[in-house]
Amino acid sequence: MTSPVGATVPIGVSNRHLHLAPADVTRLLGDGKTLTVDRMITQPGQFAAVERIDVVGPKGKITGMRVVGPARTATQVELSLTDARMLGVSAHLANSGKLGDSASGLTLVGPAGSVALSSGVIIAARHLHCGPEDATRLGVSDGDWIDVVCGTGSRQVVFEGLLVRAGPAHATEVHLDTDEAAAAAVVTGDQARIVAWRAS
Amino acid sequence: MTSPVGATVPIGVSNRHLHLAPADVTRLLGDGKTLTVDRMITQPGQFAAVERIDVVGPKGKITGMRVVGPARTATQVELSLTDARMLGVSAHLANSGKLGDSASGLTLVGPAGSVALSSGVIIAARHLHCGPEDATRLGVSDGDWIDVVCGTGSRQVVFEGLLVRAGPAHATEVHLDTDEAAAAAVVTGDQARIVAWRAS
Repeated sequence: MTSPVGATVPIGVSNRHLHLAPADVTRLLGDGKTLTVDRMITQPGQFAAVERIDVVGPKGKITGMRVVGPARTATQVELSLTDARMLGVSAHLANSGKLGDSASGLTLVGPAGSVALSSGVIIAARHLHCGPEDATRLGVSDGDWIDVVCGTGSRQVVFEGLLVRAGPAHATEVHLDTDEAAAAAVVTGDQARIVAWRAS
Repeated sequence: MTSPVGATVPIGVSNRHLHLAPADVTRLLGDGKTLTVDRMITQPGQFAAVERIDVVGPKGKITGMRVVGPARTATQVELSLTDARMLGVSAHLANSGKLGDSASGLTLVGPAGSVALSSGVIIAARHLHCGPEDATRLGVSDGDWIDVVCGTGSRQVVFEGLLVRAGPAHATEVHLDTDEAAAAAVVTGDQARIVAWRAS
């Protein structure tokens, strides 16, 4: 049986960004406006938009936050723990798209209007995106869990408990947030090595 | 033989701070001035000073950085990787006090003058401070290496390769920087568990 332990996968560092529901695109950018592509990103079909949004919290503000398109069912702001503290919101860890108990307290401000969020603010849990061919090659399935080692020397870190998200919507990449990447002193394109695997 | 594996030790999160040589205290604060105690910190004999210093780099500035006293042989600025990037200096990982290849490029600004640093800017490598009684109880010696697990659930992280610094000048505490603490979502007073040990 194939085991992914020992295999390496590229790291992608996720900076803070947000996804917008269509209604919020209209509120923030104006009637008839849509997100426009600045550049395509690694995950299939997703793009960094030209449009940027200010994010205002009780204690701080981030101007010009990157929007990742296309529009999604629910608006979602993905922060690092450091960002959340600076903004003054108690966002907690969640898997992207799982907004059941996500935090509120932020206001989005765009050129045409603003939106006060009643939920949708998360610290995205690290995870492995995995394309179908790589999932077969590595021997992992959607819903599995892995541990990975990142970094070198006195900055080497084992990140435990990454959810595997495998399927045609994914390009193979370990996603870390900026706090995790800084702790291991890694950047996008560095390699992570899988050191443990638990099948779903 | 006693092994420290499985034992827990408290975490102390080190925010950015600086130590000053006596000559730099004079340059920054003025003739005859010395550091005054705001509050004693965990490590024996050390204190957070009332006086604060601005730190200016090529790309950014941190106002009012905390000075840890008393004065030391060499001035040393301890940053996180995130701080170093914001300031625009290429500080790299070093053990505190080992300034052989430390970065320059920062200017310290105090009420009486400024000091351009030709070295002494580091990202302090995580480590275990250990008092003599705890070193005996745990079975570790100065110069050993340990790995520790910190955090819980999907934020659990193993930090590898912490240098043990044991002796009467130390109070038992795992020191992480703010990037590492954010990656594991831990704060000062949380516990780290030792999961590996290599004798010196």
